[in-house]
Amino acid sequence: MAIEALFFDVFGTLADWRTSIAREARTVLVPAGHQLDWLAFADAWRAEYQPAMEEVRSGRTPFSRLDILHRRNLDRILPRFGIIDLPEETAHQLNLAWHRLDCWPDVAHGMARLKARFRLAPVSNGNISLMVDLARRNGLPWDAILGAEIAGDFKPKPRVYLAACEALDLAPADCMMVAAHSNDLKAAAGLGLATAHIARPNEYGPGTGEIAPKVPVDFAALSLEHLATQLGV
Amino acid sequence: MAIEALFFDVFGTLADWRTSIAREARTVLVPAGHQLDWLAFADAWRAEYQPAMEEVRSGRTPFSRLDILHRRNLDRILPRFGIIDLPEETAHQLNLAWHRLDCWPDVAHGMARLKARFRLAPVSNGNISLMVDLARRNGLPWDAILGAEIAGDFKPKPRVYLAACEALDLAPADCMMVAAHSNDLKAAAGLGLATAHIARPNEYGPGTGEIAPKVPVDFAALSLEHLATQLGV
Repeated sequence: MAIEALFFDVFGTLADWRTSIAREARTVLVPAGHQLDWLAFADAWRAEYQPAMEEVRSGRTPFSRLDILHRRNLDRILPRFGIIDLPEETAHQLNLAWHRLDCWPDVAHGMARLKARFRLAPVSNGNISLMVDLARRNGLPWDAILGAEIAGDFKPKPRVYLAACEALDLAPADCMMVAAHSNDLKAAAGLGLATAHIARPNEYGPGTGEIAPKVPVDFAALSLEHLATQLGV
Repeated sequence: MAIEALFFDVFGTLADWRTSIAREARTVLVPAGHQLDWLAFADAWRAEYQPAMEEVRSGRTPFSRLDILHRRNLDRILPRFGIIDLPEETAHQLNLAWHRLDCWPDVAHGMARLKARFRLAPVSNGNISLMVDLARRNGLPWDAILGAEIAGDFKPKPRVYLAACEALDLAPADCMMVAAHSNDLKAAAGLGLATAHIARPNEYGPGTGEIAPKVPVDFAALSLEHLATQLGV
């Protein structure tokens, strides 16, 4: 195996979206006079994520950046939490909460170790500006921003992984997908990419995430630091 | 003026393509038994650059990555230098000389200063993998790789600049194009971007490059360090 590039899932694998969204929602909505179950709000927003992308993956609606889908999903869930007529500027700021996620504690240092040996890129369903903002906030040393916006479709559609390989002039076998979600790794492996699973046991709350892969993988790690060690860097 | 992102031309503005290509051609071709005027070879290869892109810009041929155009151009000029039947692997290695350019001496430090304040991206006619390799070689801290491959066309076509602004969710007025070539800055300014000219007096050999802009610009600098100082970072 001569891996040249590592492709990363971001939401859940690198970023702790749940507690970050809860915190950001609180920061934006409390001054607007709202009080609610912030973690439940984060979960509700995230629950709309896959159905919204499925509309695109199925071909029923044209591709839109994730920021656009997040906003549609936000407008859908706000009334469920008793929030109506949120001012446009507040809704916009709230939608950008996804640009202000914090990464899990092992990410920055693990990524710095991996950078020395491998080309690194997010292959996320998030859009370029979202990835740029997360990288600047969390010190992620990307070589390029690849993923859904480059491909014009959403994972786990094959085009997203293959467009990432092609952008770096690499064969799938020279690339490794790194994710905390077995379905993401299964799709990548089916196209010939190597795969690494990162355990994120607390993604949806304590004890809810995948602590081990449910599919065959090349590496199974407990953190990015652990993966770096396994890869000898 | 509240500039949020700086977009960089790369060949000539950041990278000294002429002496780098001469050196790389020598490194690849001397072991193959060839001796020639290396700077003339670099100039001849570069002279095919604009005509090849013009075929795409005009719509006469579909978009191809610059690596592909560089290879077609290489195959065109090799016989002029008496080189025929170059082995495929050697020709491929020679074509990748563009991935091994060195930047002008002010670039790495100037870019590090600019990174603290601005989002930074190449908006070059080079392809993503080429930009990634130059960045790793020269320590360029890009936030994203934008430019021709994202846009599917070549500068100075408007789509290339506008696709870069859109990828970062910014209006043209929030972005500044940085280049050593007045025609690049003229095109960007026409779309509402701010512009900064960098003097590169030796781009095509001593005393051949633009020492000052030929069009109105927002900043005219002698180096990236000088630009960083003018921008107060």
